[in-house]
Amino acid sequence: MSNLETNRVYNFNPGPANLPLEVLKEAQAEFLNFNNSGMSIIEISHRSKPYEEVHAQAKADILELMNLGNDYEVLFIQGGASLQFAMIPMNFASPEHKGNYILSGTFSSNAYKEAVTLGVGEVAASSKETGFHHVPQQNELKINPNAAYLHICNNNTIYGTEFHYIPDTNGVPLFADMSSDMLSRPWDFSKFDFIYAGVQKNLGPAGVVLVVAKKSLIEKSRETLPTMLRYDTFFKKDSLYNTPPEFCIYMVGKVAKWVKSQGGLTAMAERNAKKAKLLYDAIDNSDGFYRGHADKDSRSFMNVTFRLPNEELEKKFVVEALEHNLSGVKGHRSVGGMRASIYNAMPIEGAEALANFMDQFKKAN
Amino acid sequence: MSNLETNRVYNFNPGPANLPLEVLKEAQAEFLNFNNSGMSIIEISHRSKPYEEVHAQAKADILELMNLGNDYEVLFIQGGASLQFAMIPMNFASPEHKGNYILSGTFSSNAYKEAVTLGVGEVAASSKETGFHHVPQQNELKINPNAAYLHICNNNTIYGTEFHYIPDTNGVPLFADMSSDMLSRPWDFSKFDFIYAGVQKNLGPAGVVLVVAKKSLIEKSRETLPTMLRYDTFFKKDSLYNTPPEFCIYMVGKVAKWVKSQGGLTAMAERNAKKAKLLYDAIDNSDGFYRGHADKDSRSFMNVTFRLPNEELEKKFVVEALEHNLSGVKGHRSVGGMRASIYNAMPIEGAEALANFMDQFKKAN
Repeated sequence: MSNLETNRVYNFNPGPANLPLEVLKEAQAEFLNFNNSGMSIIEISHRSKPYEEVHAQAKADILELMNLGNDYEVLFIQGGASLQFAMIPMNFASPEHKGNYILSGTFSSNAYKEAVTLGVGEVAASSKETGFHHVPQQNELKINPNAAYLHICNNNTIYGTEFHYIPDTNGVPLFADMSSDMLSRPWDFSKFDFIYAGVQKNLGPAGVVLVVAKKSLIEKSRETLPTMLRYDTFFKKDSLYNTPPEFCIYMVGKVAKWVKSQGGLTAMAERNAKKAKLLYDAIDNSDGFYRGHADKDSRSFMNVTFRLPNEELEKKFVVEALEHNLSGVKGHRSVGGMRASIYNAMPIEGAEALANFMDQFKKAN
Repeated sequence: MSNLETNRVYNFNPGPANLPLEVLKEAQAEFLNFNNSGMSIIEISHRSKPYEEVHAQAKADILELMNLGNDYEVLFIQGGASLQFAMIPMNFASPEHKGNYILSGTFSSNAYKEAVTLGVGEVAASSKETGFHHVPQQNELKINPNAAYLHICNNNTIYGTEFHYIPDTNGVPLFADMSSDMLSRPWDFSKFDFIYAGVQKNLGPAGVVLVVAKKSLIEKSRETLPTMLRYDTFFKKDSLYNTPPEFCIYMVGKVAKWVKSQGGLTAMAERNAKKAKLLYDAIDNSDGFYRGHADKDSRSFMNVTFRLPNEELEKKFVVEALEHNLSGVKGHRSVGGMRASIYNAMPIEGAEALANFMDQFKKAN
């Protein structure tokens, strides 16, 4: 199935991002009457059996894909990863047991800032001074043994870098923002205590954060916290304390099912590696016309960032790419240049088309 | 256009609730390619022009419908009204200037509880002891003149009661949860300082809260609050500090446009009054077979609550109603009996069908 039928483009936006066309078509077909309920999924009660099945199946499929057992729970929380940046220190850190942070880009720095506002943030490592070209490696980490947790951002969307190792924390709970590489590769998720991801990159429409955490961490929260900022509210009520963002969860469920049908995380990782190789090869074989932002050992499989010889050519690249139905390749202003986001749903043909265009563009300019 | 085409039911659920069929069809038709972008609305960047237009138009249409000027701002915030229950006291109340609350049902009581958790809640009036059959009237209010605000829940979904007056607060800012009657009638909204509504009843799919507040209240928040819990974050960044729940906002925009096309809030109020009259007449003319929960002066135009002679008949009513394509009429467990939610999108034919069924059912039992 081509991504280009129905006049669609190859969408390289960093998030919200492209979703599998099959999934979109399925949602479209049943939009007026979900599961013979006589209602749209967006009109149905969150206390109804058809919705409860969607909710439970999405949770089960996610745990299955991550190969996690009954000691982990899946939560659906609104507010974006940015609200998690605050909820995590509010729930887990204290002045005696601070949150430790690895600063590897914009979002990990934002997470740290929230902990600082609350007086409970501490830096364990940072690649800021070297321009976030790499992810701090194990030998750079200085984790406080009294830390409440070590927080990492697994993939740095803006800089195009990604963790290719799981930090050894010497017993400190490991927390990870996986917003931009969730379900993109097999990983020993059981080494993490708390994982979260805004779903709008690999998993579904903006409007819900997926939290996958050890039950022992979230079964009891501080009584002084408001109801909606306590993880135990979501845990005890199965993320149904109040009306959940049904449509987002429904779509996440469909995407998880699609990932399973494609062969799970192993198949995703293979596809994603192929796509990334196409683009990194186009950079590496360009005789310096394209310059990657990320150091090679930290290159992201999700967001490929690169500069051109000058800003004039970068503007031209964006315009001509769009003429080739390659949309959303402009980089973030803090890095400049180009960024091609190639999440799970981007077909290999999309990466091929972009790699070919990069080659043509280089020859022509 | 009949609500029953494509095998749909009349959906009397309290929320998520029925949406205008025209709006659903429009969203369905453009689901794979929004506005010739080559992407779905759920795949498009929130920094793109097509999305920004949706966002801005939704805000403008809401202010226009509410007849509010430039001194008010529209915000889109995730987390449901339940998160607002906490954000409001966190942003505005203090031990010296407590939040004052009118307790008129479940959700106003929940809002008050959050203020109590934060040590800043005070009751200004309550109808709890009389079973929430009515909304406290002006002469029952004891508002602390030092209060940070007076908080009311404009319509009590569970009990089926509604404010039919705007409290005179003697200068204390008036805050209202309008989740279940937002945009259902013309009202002097300029008497309110802060209005909010979970959209999943009258306005769109669950996943966003609409806040309409005086700019002077929200332009500067306490520095000690985390970013996502400060109203000024949403105000300064036009609710685009982080990725907003695009699909929900897009649907809210479509519903607002639909309300305008139907004749605005005056037309909504007329339709809603007709629907409510059909059902309240069926109760009042039943010789006591149906007993309304709400006192007549507090009857809601949105949620009609009533009991039958016994629970056996109530169960039978639910089953037989569904056989007549009348879905979602079971009441909340805390009141029992029936609840028919007849929000803006419920066509008059739906209320007629239910009123007719009530009449038949009474005759047969």
